[in-house]
Amino acid sequence: MTDSREFPAVKTSGAEIVDEPIVCETHPDRYRHWTLSFDGPVATLGMDVREDAGLKDDYRLKLNSYDLAVDIELADAIQRIRFEHPDVRVVIIRSLKDRIFCAGANIFMLASSDHGFKVNFCKFTNETRLAMEDASAHSGIKFVCAVNGICAGGGYELALACDEILMVDDGNAAVSLPETPLLGVLPGTGGLTRMTDKRKVRRDLADMFCTLVEGVKGKRSVQWGLVDAVFPTSRFKEAVDERAKKLAALSDRPAAPSTSGEAAAAPCLLTPLNPDFNGQVLSYEYVAVTLDHAHRIASLTVHAPNTHQPETPEEFAAAGDRAWALKAFRELDDALLRLRLNEPEMGTVIVRTEGDIERILAVDRALVAHQSHWLVREIILMIKRTLKRLDLTARSLIAVIEPGSCFAGTLFELALAADRSYMLDDPERPNAIALSPMNGGLLPMGNGLSRMQVRFLAKPELVGELLGEEEPFDAMAALDAGLVSATPDALDWDDEIRLAIEARAALSPDALTGMEANLRFPGPETMETKIFGRLSAWQNWIFQRPNAVGERGALKAFGGARGRPEFDWKRT
Amino acid sequence: MTDSREFPAVKTSGAEIVDEPIVCETHPDRYRHWTLSFDGPVATLGMDVREDAGLKDDYRLKLNSYDLAVDIELADAIQRIRFEHPDVRVVIIRSLKDRIFCAGANIFMLASSDHGFKVNFCKFTNETRLAMEDASAHSGIKFVCAVNGICAGGGYELALACDEILMVDDGNAAVSLPETPLLGVLPGTGGLTRMTDKRKVRRDLADMFCTLVEGVKGKRSVQWGLVDAVFPTSRFKEAVDERAKKLAALSDRPAAPSTSGEAAAAPCLLTPLNPDFNGQVLSYEYVAVTLDHAHRIASLTVHAPNTHQPETPEEFAAAGDRAWALKAFRELDDALLRLRLNEPEMGTVIVRTEGDIERILAVDRALVAHQSHWLVREIILMIKRTLKRLDLTARSLIAVIEPGSCFAGTLFELALAADRSYMLDDPERPNAIALSPMNGGLLPMGNGLSRMQVRFLAKPELVGELLGEEEPFDAMAALDAGLVSATPDALDWDDEIRLAIEARAALSPDALTGMEANLRFPGPETMETKIFGRLSAWQNWIFQRPNAVGERGALKAFGGARGRPEFDWKRT
Repeated sequence: MTDSREFPAVKTSGAEIVDEPIVCETHPDRYRHWTLSFDGPVATLGMDVREDAGLKDDYRLKLNSYDLAVDIELADAIQRIRFEHPDVRVVIIRSLKDRIFCAGANIFMLASSDHGFKVNFCKFTNETRLAMEDASAHSGIKFVCAVNGICAGGGYELALACDEILMVDDGNAAVSLPETPLLGVLPGTGGLTRMTDKRKVRRDLADMFCTLVEGVKGKRSVQWGLVDAVFPTSRFKEAVDERAKKLAALSDRPAAPSTSGEAAAAPCLLTPLNPDFNGQVLSYEYVAVTLDHAHRIASLTVHAPNTHQPETPEEFAAAGDRAWALKAFRELDDALLRLRLNEPEMGTVIVRTEGDIERILAVDRALVAHQSHWLVREIILMIKRTLKRLDLTARSLIAVIEPGSCFAGTLFELALAADRSYMLDDPERPNAIALSPMNGGLLPMGNGLSRMQVRFLAKPELVGELLGEEEPFDAMAALDAGLVSATPDALDWDDEIRLAIEARAALSPDALTGMEANLRFPGPETMETKIFGRLSAWQNWIFQRPNAVGERGALKAFGGARGRPEFDWKRT
Repeated sequence: MTDSREFPAVKTSGAEIVDEPIVCETHPDRYRHWTLSFDGPVATLGMDVREDAGLKDDYRLKLNSYDLAVDIELADAIQRIRFEHPDVRVVIIRSLKDRIFCAGANIFMLASSDHGFKVNFCKFTNETRLAMEDASAHSGIKFVCAVNGICAGGGYELALACDEILMVDDGNAAVSLPETPLLGVLPGTGGLTRMTDKRKVRRDLADMFCTLVEGVKGKRSVQWGLVDAVFPTSRFKEAVDERAKKLAALSDRPAAPSTSGEAAAAPCLLTPLNPDFNGQVLSYEYVAVTLDHAHRIASLTVHAPNTHQPETPEEFAAAGDRAWALKAFRELDDALLRLRLNEPEMGTVIVRTEGDIERILAVDRALVAHQSHWLVREIILMIKRTLKRLDLTARSLIAVIEPGSCFAGTLFELALAADRSYMLDDPERPNAIALSPMNGGLLPMGNGLSRMQVRFLAKPELVGELLGEEEPFDAMAALDAGLVSATPDALDWDDEIRLAIEARAALSPDALTGMEANLRFPGPETMETKIFGRLSAWQNWIFQRPNAVGERGALKAFGGARGRPEFDWKRT
């Protein structure tokens, strides 16, 4: 294992004034809320939240309730299981506390957080749940939730993200979504959507369930489709273990050496990123972010590798997390989270790349050729998730394509993800973009389409034609093909880019968030996009309403000395 | 034509205190903002908004900007074209003002309206646009938008709802969505969704377009896919007429007598509903709503007919709008709009039916048998739209099924649309529900599924099985089949219903709105559901944000003496 002392300390604030930046990197050695243990192909994530170890000191994380600090560890654990434990095929999520599984997101934390933090907290927890489902769908890692007691709100939403929910039938254990009756908000971490679209709970039963503070227990929870099975206490542990073993047998993850006789797959350890941050520049090995606080503009640059990159599974295994494809996107992921959580005023992000196009195309060739190897698969899935995180980042993204850039293949996805892209057209200084098979569907958006399909929704036949094009595109060709938004010439370039950025940075931050949340997701919706579209948008609305967050609102009134909430009864 | 003097006067207020109720019934004789004229199969809707004839006196409807009063007339015109003008196959929407098509929703109206009114206004205008697209998809009525000048915001959103957008190329006429840069809100009447999902405008071009206050004109508007064609002024009228004639030839509406030699289809005149309202009870012929203001509970009852109902196309033609199937749902539609606009505190609606199940099933048989006849088709489509209006009504809906009720076929859709349903199980007093072929897909929800399909998303095979069941279901059979939520017995009935309603009425109105907006729409999303889910939810969020509606917000600042808006720059 890596030395956890190299990881940055997690300590900060969700309040209006952020004293220390929130850092999402951590390591099992430093977990305060989860234990991670292994038994052959079965990993167990044990939840045992430390009441006094939240992000802030003004609430206590009672009854396995959680805040961002708890979820950061969960996200880290899942990521590490994927990369560092190639033989793990099933994860059991359980509570280490007696008679309580998880009480959900901490209400006092929610009540005391500002609007932006609440929204970003929910977005992160949603991304973590979706990463579990992504591991289940694509990595051969199944999740079993062992509900040993009260499983409320976000606790049940965590269970819903698992493949199977098993509950003890002891007259105490119950699942519930009491957000609406108790707090005047929604179960916003995918709960409503997963009930209707994943578990397909009948909508009238879902309606009853969501207004029952005490929830549903025993056989009825199975009848309604809320959990998969219940067991008496005496048989519970055995039943969970049995189910885990059955699911493990279905996985295509590398077998452990003891069962296969083959050499074990080498773990890919995720070492600390160790970025440098001086308040203005955040720099990693391959990613750099420069913050212009005066103009509220961030410049994000991703650099191509300039060393030999793995070409075979063996070379990928040997390189581990030093491979550019993994390292660059781990850095990008971390940078995006820091931008979201610590730099709320950076409304516009200029996206640049720098380096040799050929190097990127070579990386893409290796990724595509070995996509079925477990580690290469995980790297591709990690790139996919990071690009989805970019799609969901509520900042205007403007790709600027200049000579020396390398918007090719996987990195061209950054330009496709941007709200618009400008490419310099200067015959004196060659400037090119290129496609690769990585643009052909290995990095889908949340709506299930590739970014090329989304871009050419009106002309789907163009996608195949363009992907068949082996030569890079110069500015004119890129514009003709519809791959970039505009191609100013050298004379206009500086002014046009400056004006475009200044104009963007002057618009209402909220209108831009709403506009981008619509324009970025044309076409089909999936459970995933419904969670961030329909569900989160309504939750964010409620998070603004006095009936929830006003002085007498339900969220503020809960558990406080202010008594029962007082509602404005008008329906909207 | 009917005598317009029988229609109620339209005059009311969108402000906090509603002096007089808003009434959505009107008649062409009373239009103040539109003219409706006919030339064979082509109808022309001419927009000529009277500045001083808005719903309220504190703004002027300059430049063909609109408020609810204008949209009420548009909705009425489209409805009447469907029923009263069976030979109309194309509607041209044009402006009667020079060099201006439509400036969109009136900003001063928006800025001075309370949150609930803004949300309801947008919901109504969205429903009107969708009714146009429904007529195009299912009634054989195509819409051509003739853009003769500035076409901004809601004006362009009206154009987007048409089948074709033709624009004059005179250096002045332009389409634009300036909401984000100018007002800090979204084009919320479907604009963003129709751009990406209907016209499939490339997302980066859509992004540029939505930040260009002046919009796009001439050839570029065609290149970007924003309009279908542009023409010089000299050829514009001719081109529009030509296009209208071509579209008319494709329609399956009844031919006018002059062209077919057959007898003309008789118009179905929509006569005034003349409800009675004493402040507590709103009563129509077949629909009654009782308002319990103290408990914020409305009781909505739909009565079955007790007279002979049409069984043949000829009898439908003879009955006109007196046919129960049309009259009852026109009344229901009107009642729902009054509830939404005039009774914001009625949070819970108890849905009841009364009458003979057999009469409903007989109506359903006639509707299904003659569904391809133009008038029967229009009646079915009207029922469908009304039920969609119910799905989108932000009130808790509880169906109460008691002896004497007639939740059968088309009326059982009311129970399926409800958030939950209670059915009395009393062997002493027979009580039944029944399905009919009308539950089999003729009345789909906005997501394209029937309410039966939505209910049984987890077990799609059950839908066909249950629809094959010819006998009515008693309470036990209905519960077993999953058709009702609960079946208390006579001993528990009163208490259980009372407690369920009281508990519901005590919850946060906003959390319920968000919860219902999620649970009512499981499964697939369509452009229609995206407009009410993704787009409207984000717009409603923005409508709560100080950056839009605060004292220095963009919506308030526009055109006022307060100068430029001041933004909180934090991105959410």
